[in-house]
Amino acid sequence: MRKILIAAAIGAARYLPAQAPATHTLMPVPSAVAFTSDRLPLDSSFSVSIVAYRDARLEGAITRAVARLERRTAMPLPHQYGTDTAATVLIDVAGAGFAVPDVNEDESYSLDVTGAHAVLTAATVVGALHGLETLLQLQNADARGFYFEGARVHDAPRFKWRGLLVDVGRHFETVDAMKRTLDGMAVVKLNVLHWHLSEDQGFRVESMRFPRLQEMGSDGLYYTQAQIRDIVQYATDRGIRVVPEFDVPGHSTAWLVGYPDLASGPGPYSIARGWGTFPGTMDPTRQSTYDFLDAFIGEMATLFPDHYWHIGGDEVNPLQWKRSTAIQAWMKQNGIADEKGLQTAFNRRLFDILKAHGKVPVGWDEILEPDLPTDAVIQSWRSTKALLTAASLGHQGILSQPYYLDHINTAAEHYVADPLPSNTDLTPAQQALILGGEACMWGEYVTGETIDSRIWPRLAAIAERFWSPTTVTDVPDMYRRLEITSRRLAEVGTRQEGHTARMVREIAGGTDALTLDQLLDYARPKGFGNYGSDPLGANKHTTDQFSPHTRLIDAAQPDPWSGWHLLDRADRAVAGDSTAADSLRSDFARMIALQAALSATATRVPVAQEGLAVAAMLHALGALGNEALDVMAHPATGTAAWRLQADSTLRVARRSTGLLRPVGADAVRVLVDAAEKGLPPGTGTP
Amino acid sequence: MRKILIAAAIGAARYLPAQAPATHTLMPVPSAVAFTSDRLPLDSSFSVSIVAYRDARLEGAITRAVARLERRTAMPLPHQYGTDTAATVLIDVAGAGFAVPDVNEDESYSLDVTGAHAVLTAATVVGALHGLETLLQLQNADARGFYFEGARVHDAPRFKWRGLLVDVGRHFETVDAMKRTLDGMAVVKLNVLHWHLSEDQGFRVESMRFPRLQEMGSDGLYYTQAQIRDIVQYATDRGIRVVPEFDVPGHSTAWLVGYPDLASGPGPYSIARGWGTFPGTMDPTRQSTYDFLDAFIGEMATLFPDHYWHIGGDEVNPLQWKRSTAIQAWMKQNGIADEKGLQTAFNRRLFDILKAHGKVPVGWDEILEPDLPTDAVIQSWRSTKALLTAASLGHQGILSQPYYLDHINTAAEHYVADPLPSNTDLTPAQQALILGGEACMWGEYVTGETIDSRIWPRLAAIAERFWSPTTVTDVPDMYRRLEITSRRLAEVGTRQEGHTARMVREIAGGTDALTLDQLLDYARPKGFGNYGSDPLGANKHTTDQFSPHTRLIDAAQPDPWSGWHLLDRADRAVAGDSTAADSLRSDFARMIALQAALSATATRVPVAQEGLAVAAMLHALGALGNEALDVMAHPATGTAAWRLQADSTLRVARRSTGLLRPVGADAVRVLVDAAEKGLPPGTGTP
Repeated sequence: MRKILIAAAIGAARYLPAQAPATHTLMPVPSAVAFTSDRLPLDSSFSVSIVAYRDARLEGAITRAVARLERRTAMPLPHQYGTDTAATVLIDVAGAGFAVPDVNEDESYSLDVTGAHAVLTAATVVGALHGLETLLQLQNADARGFYFEGARVHDAPRFKWRGLLVDVGRHFETVDAMKRTLDGMAVVKLNVLHWHLSEDQGFRVESMRFPRLQEMGSDGLYYTQAQIRDIVQYATDRGIRVVPEFDVPGHSTAWLVGYPDLASGPGPYSIARGWGTFPGTMDPTRQSTYDFLDAFIGEMATLFPDHYWHIGGDEVNPLQWKRSTAIQAWMKQNGIADEKGLQTAFNRRLFDILKAHGKVPVGWDEILEPDLPTDAVIQSWRSTKALLTAASLGHQGILSQPYYLDHINTAAEHYVADPLPSNTDLTPAQQALILGGEACMWGEYVTGETIDSRIWPRLAAIAERFWSPTTVTDVPDMYRRLEITSRRLAEVGTRQEGHTARMVREIAGGTDALTLDQLLDYARPKGFGNYGSDPLGANKHTTDQFSPHTRLIDAAQPDPWSGWHLLDRADRAVAGDSTAADSLRSDFARMIALQAALSATATRVPVAQEGLAVAAMLHALGALGNEALDVMAHPATGTAAWRLQADSTLRVARRSTGLLRPVGADAVRVLVDAAEKGLPPGTGTP
Repeated sequence: MRKILIAAAIGAARYLPAQAPATHTLMPVPSAVAFTSDRLPLDSSFSVSIVAYRDARLEGAITRAVARLERRTAMPLPHQYGTDTAATVLIDVAGAGFAVPDVNEDESYSLDVTGAHAVLTAATVVGALHGLETLLQLQNADARGFYFEGARVHDAPRFKWRGLLVDVGRHFETVDAMKRTLDGMAVVKLNVLHWHLSEDQGFRVESMRFPRLQEMGSDGLYYTQAQIRDIVQYATDRGIRVVPEFDVPGHSTAWLVGYPDLASGPGPYSIARGWGTFPGTMDPTRQSTYDFLDAFIGEMATLFPDHYWHIGGDEVNPLQWKRSTAIQAWMKQNGIADEKGLQTAFNRRLFDILKAHGKVPVGWDEILEPDLPTDAVIQSWRSTKALLTAASLGHQGILSQPYYLDHINTAAEHYVADPLPSNTDLTPAQQALILGGEACMWGEYVTGETIDSRIWPRLAAIAERFWSPTTVTDVPDMYRRLEITSRRLAEVGTRQEGHTARMVREIAGGTDALTLDQLLDYARPKGFGNYGSDPLGANKHTTDQFSPHTRLIDAAQPDPWSGWHLLDRADRAVAGDSTAADSLRSDFARMIALQAALSATATRVPVAQEGLAVAAMLHALGALGNEALDVMAHPATGTAAWRLQADSTLRVARRSTGLLRPVGADAVRVLVDAAEKGLPPGTGTP
């Protein structure tokens, strides 16, 4: 895969003209950008003018941008925006755009930064919001002071639906957490918050019409209607649409606690605490179910102005449907062959209700069954193929399968997944049905304390995939910019930076915290589904909604920077860069030393025991890395036995035990491969 | 001073019997504690019983304590509290205590931790809250797992008024900031939030009766009445009283924006943006002023149930009173000689109003004038002496003068200031009038981003001064426990830990952030009043309410840990400890290296220029420290010239330029003194 990326990176160069600095820090990369040698000073004479259309949303966005410049420069800057064309920044917007945020909003903008001005031109306020973020990314500083880099940018997104799902059903997230997430999304030009608001484990919105939903289904953890309006407005102010998801007919246990009559089986129900699917499922055969949903959606439609409405529809447990003689009889009477057909019948009724409330339905890919009306948008989570099938049947589609943040993949793994690969079999008309993609932050193993570290900064790489031209695929360059982008995200309040240091300080403190922090420089969590399978005696339990999330796996970052640093150094060392080889030896020394340090820590800090297995593996990888560098330098010292041992060590590192996996195996593999190539004839494996 | 402290520390030993581990981590130190070798395991069998009185406040506090144990152990623990006397922790409380939080609450408790149980006994729920905090401080861990240390504690506070003032007038603080501050206060057994709610720069509470107060006087930054009730309840739940301060008749510009008729001079008024005192002052000669205050206090009294009410009364600018012929005529007519007398007349009317609403007045020490009714409590801020004068006149008193957190003193400097020194001239009856003390967090140079780092952890040292016996004065031991306490505070949400790293990451990032972080290991801000006198060209401005607070001084910690580490190492090095001397040489090497690293950073990060002056000083101090160690080792190498140069360097270090001052001058002074003592005769200064 890495070779392919390098080839693609060459293609990307056409977007960056010859004079582009190799170190530009724009993310996502604009569709067209040319850098110049101009320099627009940012000093106390800074001012912003609005030379055409203006409204409160535009002015608010400018004020937030100016406040960020004040933070960066520690200079007070003016918060009034006149029309003087001599201002530092000129904002030239044609109009407001859609009154209600719309999937067809014109998000394009142009930005021309010269030595005299920055001129931002856009058809809509949303376009201007994106341009302001780009302007902030062009701000730089040197010994002469603060300035904006000269550049000409013409930019528009590749996909019009660029989303993040946040699951607040399984673990609730506060208003503040939602707002800082929206702020982060705006930084990287994402435009859809897919808000997963109901689950077996919690119903999270206040309903006046059906108050037992939140009273009995939320443990008191829900958003009031005022808070929902506040968050939706907050999103709108940042050019982000809010698509609510109320998952039906499955994943609906929390509804049934207060309204058991909705269910296909007898109650009472209680809020689910564990994970998985649960038997409680709405009854598609009774008119009362639809009357309830009609009234409920009518109420909620006043809170969520977006045209799209997510019905869920995933992982319906057919147990209650199969067991109910009444439901089975109804199916027979209505010529419905099986439970999948029953769900489609439910969906058709539901779509009629949504249509009456002016909403376009979106559902998970399970709903794609014969007889499904083509106006339903299909969100693909089980496979990429489902999206292509849906498009071939005429459905609009959104890709999520490769973008599950809780699977704890690397940013690179997400980055290389294209919603519409260049080798697609879809016709141009079918391709136009692919609206875009969504990253998914499911909530089983995520709390308010850890969610930022799970979302960011990886989401910025996904955001670039959704926005930038298909040819922008240089992984090392993505990582270089991602590190800088992560700090920019922290500027608006996201908390991924320092996450590990913060948590281990509380878990351990003092030198023990330092050891844990260093360990987690080189270790990352296993993914979704592994959390519950903890091999440690003291903590052996199946996790549920009440489990504390203060373990090493919670403190760990999904994709520590050391991952790409090590790989980058290994590539350079193989190419003969001795500085890179020296850096690697320092890394390996740290990886080796961790095992003894962690063993000492584990005598004082029980949670450190969770890291012993991965520390042993890091020790082995570090030793092997050193050996590979030795063999590269002195091929005569390599032996067949070493080669066999090396392969074995790398295999073990991939398996790993416990809940953490080592970072650096890829880099060591690169070195071992290079060392093996240099081995004298006869030392190869048979 | 250091010698005195060491002598006092010996006195403190009587509170810690022979078997007390030298490394106990209780803070504040209880009035009596004996450690045993018992070990109470904390494992999955953990449970809590409430064996006598119970109420929602007690159960809530236990649940918060259990949640913190869950965080520390990553073990799910039960949240139900039965009456089984076989439980791990038995809570035996006699009753609720006062219905409304009261200054005379019985806050004592006993805690007996054996190998079988922890038994917490208290007369009131508030006593039990304090005992729970102590229990959490006895929790420890080793290779065998988590446990509570065996101990017998009998504890009660030395002073009944142990407060923190938070000024939200000059810079507003959010509900979240207030709540995490209250959580931190509870950890160190503070019991009064003195909430400074109105200032020239902002009126921060919603009034229904006089809505222009917040509508015109707050920039929209105020607490709704629901939020006030929420915060007061939050405080009550943590055993903390809330004493509101509405500062009158001065510091009241923000009132006058909406209600100019209250003023002694003609309006209109606008919210003050700069710092200092302002001419707008209430008119003490008109009945309408008292009618307003009566109605206002009547409304506010429903929000603040505490018996005490702070009237402010400080820094009244007499300009308007002097200029008004009507006011001067009224004074003459009423036989009032001067403006101080006029303020006393105002206070007497105000006290009558407060009395009618059931409130006891508290005021800053300016109000202590002849004719002041003795029921007024005097809060001393200009000098310690004012408190003693007040007590000799029969007033109750609260000491704040040595506890101004914005003066940016060290924890040690605050710690050695006793509200009631052992050599006091007050009679026992007068001593009983000293209610306690309050730390003050004034808001001129403090924002929501920096306030935690200004309050914590120094406030924990002050809290110990207010709670623990007068003989607990061992400064090094205080610092040892303060470092651990700082992490415990972070557990409940305070943000001082990692503050510098977080801010410099955003200011600079990458290796530049590392350099700034290392600089701020050895540098601390100058105090109150220096912020505006910035010598740097680019940032030269008088600060006001809108100034960004993202400079090095904002990222710096008031009392970095290196301060006491260096001094401790210097003492040990002088005593012949070669390991300490080696550590010092490492410190000095880092201090020296910073100058070049920072100069490089300053070419990329303009804000780094603010650190160049202090970096040069650290270089000089580090070099001098090395020289002193050399001379200590080889006295023959010392010369009179070196001695003169050393004194000069240390003098320069105390003066310092810019907004940062170096840490380590005290430690280097200790080394230089020791080196000088060893010099051959004849090398002394004349």
